[in-house]
Amino acid sequence: MTSPEQTKDYIGVDVSGAALRAALVSSGGQVVERREAALDGGDLVAQITRIVAELRDASRGGVAALGVGIPGLVNPETGRVIISSGLPSAVSGDLQAELKGATGLPVTLENDANAGAFGEYTIGAGRGSRNMFYVTIGAGIGGAIILDGKLWHGASGFAGEFGHITIDPEGIECTCGNTGCLETVASAPNIVRRTHERLYRDGTSSLSRLAMNKEFTAADVAREARNGDDFALLMIERTGRSIGTAVAAVINLLNPERIVLGGGVMEAGALILDPIIRVAGRRAFQPCFEATQIVAASLGTDAVSTGAAMLARDATSSSKAV
Amino acid sequence: MTSPEQTKDYIGVDVSGAALRAALVSSGGQVVERREAALDGGDLVAQITRIVAELRDASRGGVAALGVGIPGLVNPETGRVIISSGLPSAVSGDLQAELKGATGLPVTLENDANAGAFGEYTIGAGRGSRNMFYVTIGAGIGGAIILDGKLWHGASGFAGEFGHITIDPEGIECTCGNTGCLETVASAPNIVRRTHERLYRDGTSSLSRLAMNKEFTAADVAREARNGDDFALLMIERTGRSIGTAVAAVINLLNPERIVLGGGVMEAGALILDPIIRVAGRRAFQPCFEATQIVAASLGTDAVSTGAAMLARDATSSSKAV
Repeated sequence: MTSPEQTKDYIGVDVSGAALRAALVSSGGQVVERREAALDGGDLVAQITRIVAELRDASRGGVAALGVGIPGLVNPETGRVIISSGLPSAVSGDLQAELKGATGLPVTLENDANAGAFGEYTIGAGRGSRNMFYVTIGAGIGGAIILDGKLWHGASGFAGEFGHITIDPEGIECTCGNTGCLETVASAPNIVRRTHERLYRDGTSSLSRLAMNKEFTAADVAREARNGDDFALLMIERTGRSIGTAVAAVINLLNPERIVLGGGVMEAGALILDPIIRVAGRRAFQPCFEATQIVAASLGTDAVSTGAAMLARDATSSSKAV
Repeated sequence: MTSPEQTKDYIGVDVSGAALRAALVSSGGQVVERREAALDGGDLVAQITRIVAELRDASRGGVAALGVGIPGLVNPETGRVIISSGLPSAVSGDLQAELKGATGLPVTLENDANAGAFGEYTIGAGRGSRNMFYVTIGAGIGGAIILDGKLWHGASGFAGEFGHITIDPEGIECTCGNTGCLETVASAPNIVRRTHERLYRDGTSSLSRLAMNKEFTAADVAREARNGDDFALLMIERTGRSIGTAVAAVINLLNPERIVLGGGVMEAGALILDPIIRVAGRRAFQPCFEATQIVAASLGTDAVSTGAAMLARDATSSSKAV
């Protein structure tokens, strides 16, 4: 247990937002050090390499491998990025090979929602389960599936598309072309949109003042709800009910042991988790529902970076990283 | 390839309806012989044993194992029936052990929808895929998942509960307690109910005459639709659209290679399959949809019995049957 190999660290990088979030993680999953850097539109490989170098300096035992979570689709066979519309700069060529060349480390790439799921599964709120569904609700909505302890990618890498489940056949149009997707109701921008619409109709909320002075965010709505504003509370509660309908579909189809919900919108805590669980319990098939724990994620903004690091650790031990 | 072991046959029995349907199946999946018997409320083990004995007499190479598909839940570890509300007679004790004792054969029990899925997967419309979702729509609605060539049972054995996906949050109450489950619209009895309701409102259909004289069935609705009755056609088309909404949820969550739809309601053929595919294509996330083939099942009423036989074959070769 004390061989030098086992005390090596791993680096995980989250490229899913406007910033790079990177973490130096021990082989046991402890975050040793964090770094953040704003992403400019320039060379992504250079920016990742820079933050990796900083974290390597902070590691005592040395770094064994690098994992990167990206807002795109990664071919699990070749490790190449197939679709990367969410990336801040275009990924031409072979990101995995380029990062390996630049850092000298074995590199594992994974979709960000999948990496976040793996983080929660290995060291977060999914720990102890073998079959888990992960949801992240923020600016967009992502999902990922762990079956028998492994990420389930689906036939073309898109399994877990939770945000585009239809929860209201008569709902508004989604960017995906469908109407009434969960995302049209429950993503952070849509919480803001719905709140604006209702404020316009019956504006008796502390949010009315906010709305007059500046744009408010979904986090503002959650904060006012926590402060006891009835209107904000209603908006969060209704958001939770919509998420609960989609969670019920997951429970019915996958019968998972645990559903872990993370992302900025879930920072409303019990105010949103309670209606999710209540509606899932009403809408899901009971024997499935009773077998499923529905819990809040526990890693916060560390989920993707630590998950990517743990994926790199497991890929190195099974020689899947290049 | 010509050793005696490999020319043995397998028997599959479907206990999911009012009758036992049994098939003698070659190790390659060819149906050699079929038997049917009405199920009385008596001893299930004796009735199954009787039909198995008849099929054994018909086998040239001898029978290697027995598979039984039941309308209940089977614990995959112990092989014991956990929930059997759909069974014609109560299953007390250990059905698997009792059948083994009575027939002297290794016995595999499986939920009927799972057995049907495995039949379509191995020798039916799912052949050639590795990841498949199976739906059966008849008096009730069942579903089952095949991942990487194996049945996926879920945490408590209930994975694939397709019929209780909410497709209309404002819909009518379901027997399960939820409102707007797919089953409240698309099962055979609910097609009849909806058709009656609309006939009452605007009864300009060849079905009006039927309705005056006797109860009609979902099969009657499908037949009149095929005969060109606009009203019946509308009912089938709308049923397909509802199924398509639930199919879209499956595509988004599981990203399967293939979705195979069977059961009596699917006998309407393209009249129901076309709207299913059209609505799934509109509602599913496009990259997922494009990776999924949506096809009609091909085994008809043989699906459960042949699937149970193939499960028995595979369990015997991997020594999982007792």
